[in-house]
Amino acid sequence: MDEERDRRARFERGMAVLREIDGEEARRVLDTLADVSPELAHQIVAWGFGEIYARPRLPPRDRQLVTLGMLTALGGCEPQLQVHVGVCLNVGLTPAEIVEALLHAAPYCGVPRALNATLVAKRVFAERGLLPVVDAGRAE
Amino acid sequence: MDEERDRRARFERGMAVLREIDGEEARRVLDTLADVSPELAHQIVAWGFGEIYARPRLPPRDRQLVTLGMLTALGGCEPQLQVHVGVCLNVGLTPAEIVEALLHAAPYCGVPRALNATLVAKRVFAERGLLPVVDAGRAE
Amino acid sequence: MDEERDRRARFERGMAVLREIDGEEARRVLDTLADVSPELAHQIVAWGFGEIYARPRLPPRDRQLVTLGMLTALGGCEPQLQVHVGVCLNVGLTPAEIVEALLHAAPYCGVPRALNATLVAKRVFAERGLLPVVDAGRAE
Amino acid sequence: MDEERDRRARFERGMAVLREIDGEEARRVLDTLADVSPELAHQIVAWGFGEIYARPRLPPRDRQLVTLGMLTALGGCEPQLQVHVGVCLNVGLTPAEIVEALLHAAPYCGVPRALNATLVAKRVFAERGLLPVVDAGRAE
Amino acid sequence: MDEERDRRARFERGMAVLREIDGEEARRVLDTLADVSPELAHQIVAWGFGEIYARPRLPPRDRQLVTLGMLTALGGCEPQLQVHVGVCLNVGLTPAEIVEALLHAAPYCGVPRALNATLVAKRVFAERGLLPVVDAGRAE
Amino acid sequence: MDEERDRRARFERGMAVLREIDGEEARRVLDTLADVSPELAHQIVAWGFGEIYARPRLPPRDRQLVTLGMLTALGGCEPQLQVHVGVCLNVGLTPAEIVEALLHAAPYCGVPRALNATLVAKRVFAERGLLPVVDAGRAE
Repeated sequence: MDEERDRRARFERGMAVLREIDGEEARRVLDTLADVSPELAHQIVAWGFGEIYARPRLPPRDRQLVTLGMLTALGGCEPQLQVHVGVCLNVGLTPAEIVEALLHAAPYCGVPRALNATLVAKRVFAERGLLPVVDAGRAE
Repeated sequence: MDEERDRRARFERGMAVLREIDGEEARRVLDTLADVSPELAHQIVAWGFGEIYARPRLPPRDRQLVTLGMLTALGGCEPQLQVHVGVCLNVGLTPAEIVEALLHAAPYCGVPRALNATLVAKRVFAERGLLPVVDAGRAE
Repeated sequence: MDEERDRRARFERGMAVLREIDGEEARRVLDTLADVSPELAHQIVAWGFGEIYARPRLPPRDRQLVTLGMLTALGGCEPQLQVHVGVCLNVGLTPAEIVEALLHAAPYCGVPRALNATLVAKRVFAERGLLPVVDAGRAE
Repeated sequence: MDEERDRRARFERGMAVLREIDGEEARRVLDTLADVSPELAHQIVAWGFGEIYARPRLPPRDRQLVTLGMLTALGGCEPQLQVHVGVCLNVGLTPAEIVEALLHAAPYCGVPRALNATLVAKRVFAERGLLPVVDAGRAE
Repeated sequence: MDEERDRRARFERGMAVLREIDGEEARRVLDTLADVSPELAHQIVAWGFGEIYARPRLPPRDRQLVTLGMLTALGGCEPQLQVHVGVCLNVGLTPAEIVEALLHAAPYCGVPRALNATLVAKRVFAERGLLPVVDAGRAE
Repeated sequence: MDEERDRRARFERGMAVLREIDGEEARRVLDTLADVSPELAHQIVAWGFGEIYARPRLPPRDRQLVTLGMLTALGGCEPQLQVHVGVCLNVGLTPAEIVEALLHAAPYCGVPRALNATLVAKRVFAERGLLPVVDAGRAE
């Protein structure tokens, strides 16, 4: 039916966006929802990516900067930060830019949130062989 | 003394409520407080359950719906969500209703919080042999 | 086109839900978005109400209990609480039940959040001539 | 009955604490609850102040320092900050100490929260004729 | 002395950054701190802008995207959002891009936070004669 | 250069403060930042401790009470709570005082946050052989 085909079309649109910006991380998360809340998985793909993320008015690189800010400020979203730091790298942000964005977070969210987010980024960088981060300042 | 007997009476009232709505989860948490903050444990039982939860004006099922909303929105309260999803099941909410309540959370708290709460619910359902959740929609 | 007609269909579905549960409050808020973010208004109606709220698995009364919990816990969402306390009344929750749900919030979100939410509810009740709240306990 | 008399005893204990630490601000807030949630008012006094605040293990000055931290971090609790900055002054914290505590908050909660809390403190100081704050540093 | 001169140098560096990105809004806020917490004002300028914002690794436009995400997610930071939406416009983000960033926030922070932030942006746009926002979609 | 020497001076000032109040916990955390965000580590030490914490207007014991409140209220900052409960002990707060401060948090942040913070404190006390906490009340 129309509604049926409509759902499938938006889901496909969302999957197309996901395939462009995500390696496998986000899709693995969606799989974990299959036996508990497949509808939430559908909405993440169809609405989150198919309707909102797909909009051309803001490119993925810009969207990911906003997302870094949100997930850092929220706190307790380390699983999502893990996925989205990966997406950041996929859409063209460098490790140094990601690190700088999280440092920029410190005056706004406080050091604890900025620090917790930075340590999540470190894990993602480690997995991708991107440590140490080049051009990331010095401690002293 | 009066104050002493008063404390014991409220504690007993709270334990009575707990025994009705909780299997063992909440009581295990209270035990972990014994050597660090027994007063916090007392207040959770005597005040939280004995004074507030026990009030007849809102039945447990309704209270648990409000609680699902709060613990999802707060974030970082996965341990409490774990206990309370169990209480939800004990007071008559079905897995599908719990999943739907957490899906309902997405427009209000955002997907990260709703997703993290849903994955906690999944763990509780798994422990109780309630997966896959029946009547929970489909992804496409 | 298909996509166009789908958007309109979901928007209509959402407006139908809104008309059932909301007097005028929510629609007034949507109007304020017309000259700044009409797309956000569209998504609130089409997705929030048309896709999620409309789902039969959880009736409006139950959804509103979850929402009371979320908006109280989030803090800073007094404008939304104002709208949703009104929706609570429209879908069959009594003032005493709403007040009890917000009292139930105190052990979970703390007194400040519960108090701020209760004072928003008071304003809505005042507007609808529902003060004093009947069967809401006594202070001493 | 016993339960009745216990409630009154704890309420009285809480009012006694309130009278020691609060001028009129907190009691004015409690009055606003009379026609909507007198039970919440009862619990704030009887439990919040009568059972927890009254405990001798931490004096009011120390409690208020913890409270400054919490209300600043929570955000959206400006009404409560207004009351509690007043309580801080009543229990012996100086304006300069209060200002320093809120400055100390900036690295932990971020500047926005610290700033919003500081501007609430400014309003309370203004009402009490305590501006400018002595010994509060300089901008350059 | 050295420490004195260092403080002044960093303060000047921060004021230089502020003059580039802010019309008058942020500086007006700093003035309100003069009689209560001049040290907080100093740190905002010297540290927030002089040490962090001034770093070349992330340009102002990118920083403001992260900031939009953080202030939206935090909630209760409408005063800061008001200043920073203005800064967004000053550093080259268009009203449509700002609106799109706040729409992008809805799946991550939920609609209430995104909506409250969007209405703050509307106020800033109104003050600058930038309503209606061009190229911002349509409701149906 | 001046700016160089300035950075080093503030870093040294911060390390001096850290050595006074922290055993090894905080410094271990800073080490984990070396290969990802050494600048964040620098700022934590030079600004957080060297510029703010070092100020004489509020002694460490008072600062730690504010910090306990903030980290409890924020939620999701268990790693920082772990470090700072240790700092609390180092600057003269007793386990019973720490436990009481976290109990005091319950009416303001709600039981979940207070409970999660208390269980972090329990871990730190266990590591230092400080369980059971003396003079911490009783459950009944």
